[in-house]
Amino acid sequence: MAKNNKQFVEEITPMEDDFAQWYTDVITKTELVDYAPIKGFMVIRPYGFALWEKIRDYADDLFKKGGHKNVYFPMLIPESLLNKEADHVEGFAPEVAWVTQGGNKVLEERLAVRPTSETIICTMYSKWLTSYRQLPFLYNQWNSVVRWEKTTRPFLRTSEFLWQEGHTIHETKEEAMKETLQQLEVYRLVAEDLMAMPVIVGQKSESEKFAGADATYTIEAMMHDGKALQSGTSHFLGQHFTKAFDITYSDREGNLAHPYHTSWGISTRLIGGLIMVHSDNRGLVLPPKMAPIQVVIVPIAANKGGVMEVVDKIAEEMKAKGIVVDVDDRDNYSPGYKFNDSEMKGIPVRIEIGPKDIEKNQALAFRRDELTKDAISLDGIAETVENLLEDIQTNMFNKAKKYRDERTYVAKNMDEFVDIVENKRGFAKVMWKNNAENEAKIKELTGATIRVIPFEQEDLGDTCFYSGEKADNMVIFAKAY
Amino acid sequence: MAKNNKQFVEEITPMEDDFAQWYTDVITKTELVDYAPIKGFMVIRPYGFALWEKIRDYADDLFKKGGHKNVYFPMLIPESLLNKEADHVEGFAPEVAWVTQGGNKVLEERLAVRPTSETIICTMYSKWLTSYRQLPFLYNQWNSVVRWEKTTRPFLRTSEFLWQEGHTIHETKEEAMKETLQQLEVYRLVAEDLMAMPVIVGQKSESEKFAGADATYTIEAMMHDGKALQSGTSHFLGQHFTKAFDITYSDREGNLAHPYHTSWGISTRLIGGLIMVHSDNRGLVLPPKMAPIQVVIVPIAANKGGVMEVVDKIAEEMKAKGIVVDVDDRDNYSPGYKFNDSEMKGIPVRIEIGPKDIEKNQALAFRRDELTKDAISLDGIAETVENLLEDIQTNMFNKAKKYRDERTYVAKNMDEFVDIVENKRGFAKVMWKNNAENEAKIKELTGATIRVIPFEQEDLGDTCFYSGEKADNMVIFAKAY
Repeated sequence: MAKNNKQFVEEITPMEDDFAQWYTDVITKTELVDYAPIKGFMVIRPYGFALWEKIRDYADDLFKKGGHKNVYFPMLIPESLLNKEADHVEGFAPEVAWVTQGGNKVLEERLAVRPTSETIICTMYSKWLTSYRQLPFLYNQWNSVVRWEKTTRPFLRTSEFLWQEGHTIHETKEEAMKETLQQLEVYRLVAEDLMAMPVIVGQKSESEKFAGADATYTIEAMMHDGKALQSGTSHFLGQHFTKAFDITYSDREGNLAHPYHTSWGISTRLIGGLIMVHSDNRGLVLPPKMAPIQVVIVPIAANKGGVMEVVDKIAEEMKAKGIVVDVDDRDNYSPGYKFNDSEMKGIPVRIEIGPKDIEKNQALAFRRDELTKDAISLDGIAETVENLLEDIQTNMFNKAKKYRDERTYVAKNMDEFVDIVENKRGFAKVMWKNNAENEAKIKELTGATIRVIPFEQEDLGDTCFYSGEKADNMVIFAKAY
Repeated sequence: MAKNNKQFVEEITPMEDDFAQWYTDVITKTELVDYAPIKGFMVIRPYGFALWEKIRDYADDLFKKGGHKNVYFPMLIPESLLNKEADHVEGFAPEVAWVTQGGNKVLEERLAVRPTSETIICTMYSKWLTSYRQLPFLYNQWNSVVRWEKTTRPFLRTSEFLWQEGHTIHETKEEAMKETLQQLEVYRLVAEDLMAMPVIVGQKSESEKFAGADATYTIEAMMHDGKALQSGTSHFLGQHFTKAFDITYSDREGNLAHPYHTSWGISTRLIGGLIMVHSDNRGLVLPPKMAPIQVVIVPIAANKGGVMEVVDKIAEEMKAKGIVVDVDDRDNYSPGYKFNDSEMKGIPVRIEIGPKDIEKNQALAFRRDELTKDAISLDGIAETVENLLEDIQTNMFNKAKKYRDERTYVAKNMDEFVDIVENKRGFAKVMWKNNAENEAKIKELTGATIRVIPFEQEDLGDTCFYSGEKADNMVIFAKAY
């Protein structure tokens, strides 16, 4: 039935034909996002913003449970502050948007629209901190940042994006490192538990770390096209910024000390990941925990006696269980159109119910993840659907993990490596001797970079696949967004 | 006991001595806010941001119940868009911060850091809207805006502030007007129900309305010093923007029509209002619904056997009722210090409990609004405190309303008027014949402006207090923040 009505809904380019166009079709035709009048900027529409609210609420709750508090720092940062930490300014200066005029006057000093807020936050921490008794500062903010990007794609890379940035300072190196890794674990939960998006957890190479960090940790996910998406990062910043910004405190022995510092962020880019991990040629596929609408009920022959009564009754039963239900009772669309529409929007479960179903005391339950339709009894239907939603959430995670694992290959030499990233289009798992120069060469040759040095190491041999030297680690190379 | 320890907490300048300094002391010494490195910008610290979260969550819930959805539009707006609606650009152009450079390049067109988003939102509405079937668009966003202000004060008037801006379009004038007034009612609830801050609800005069509006509606509150604070506005924009931005749709008859338009906003300025309505010379006084901590329990002689057990037990009982409780068990501060600290922070209820109280099966309950302390039984203490919090919320509203009503005077002539706004420092309630020129003259002479034309009119006579002509309305004049 769905197929017969395909002409009525917007066409989506199959991902096999053109993955980039498929992505664009999915995000624009499902009205998640639109292009703003300024190149590289996006407008997040209600359905897209509802996804961001899910991520924000889930993460914010975990931040607060971990003792973090929200704050707000100004969006404009004087150039002189941005320049204080050398690596940092080198990393960000080329991407900055500058405010040079305010209220009809030319400003004496240019103001950066924040690309990230370490510099202004450290300026204030320096003012506030005096004693070890105040530590740690565990602050976070939800805001937007601007980075003037040359090539952009909605959600994945835009000149403005929404994110959160956590900024903490601590008495000891150990405590700061613990915080860095604890927040990385929060991000893993956001990705895997909420978004059903499996990630590889580990450390960035020296070349790929944050501008000004001692070490950057990451969660990396595989997209449908085999490319990697850096989905969240947590930085151990050591004392780089606390020294550059003269943040000191009187420690337990009464000596003046510099605290240790972390920062960590996730952004609207996660929504791009959600789509490229789960969605298909019919449109979005949303895991139930992310879905703004979890169940749509489509009445068939709604004008026939009794149908709407049953529909309303089962909708109420589901709502009582906390399930977000929408009854699609629009009278200007056919059931077929509604089926396609609900599939394009990625609603996890569709319940179809008409007079014949009611006679049999049943409804049809379509699950978006597997595209299967089964009759279910009207008795205890809310509980059946509740279980179905849980099953879909788990199944989507498992499916994505299987996909990733199947497209992750061991490379023992450069030929195998090139075959993986060019032809097989997957992750290349290799033994690696740390060497920034070799890393740069491989990037130039293949476009692939070290995405992550996984915490879960495997022993694939003793020598580096590239240099033949004694290897330091197993690492994952891939092309990336 | 509190007085003996006063030397340990930060001193607050009495409001009678210097109201502006009192305000500054309260907001900075309670660590709600700090001054940013750029003049006119503020940093909202955790305790201040927690207040904003209360406002945001309460309002967002009501917006959503009213069918509104959140979105996000870019923070930068091309100059050409800002220029499209003549009154609007005239109103905002002098306050705009301009981005002129992006990623090391000079931009071809200046980009405004949004002072408000009508122009960019209307640009997108024009693209999205085709049919009456899509209407209404009921969208809102929580974001920050920049307006280059000459004189600033944290929360009340800052060059950057946090707010929400709702933007809706509708088929009919009636529906848009209904929306405008419905959102004004939401704002009244935010002020009165959540913040215990009484407001006068009504319309702005022609001179005071939003740049580009047909009509602006407002809620106005009286501060401790008798000045008014415009605390939220809802604008009926008619078709000004929908015509300027060429937003059209095919109506029910198949004709091309321009929809009707509203916008409405509340901001972090409300926090300034909260303070100037309720707080006193000891510091903040927070209504229970706004308080990040509703009850603090201070153990006396905490090392004595049994005290902490009782403290923990009653804390759990209160938490079970949804009360936010903090046990102040810091061992490096005296009870006296803790008393003053909790009073400065405005915690609505303080429970003091020591060995002697436990012997009597009681605790002492201090209420911040009335500065009174009473013994309450440990039996059913959670319910007692719950009722106490409700009583405080109501009492704070009533007190503030009484204060406002007592400082609102009828002026029959200019002498009385000057006496009210200059000497008595209150609201002047007058009969008024609409006349922008006379309004400007009064402003020049006295600094007072028409704050609101209240919906609840009273008949104070037939003639305008100023011109002697037949009056149109009763209006409220006052000096304002």
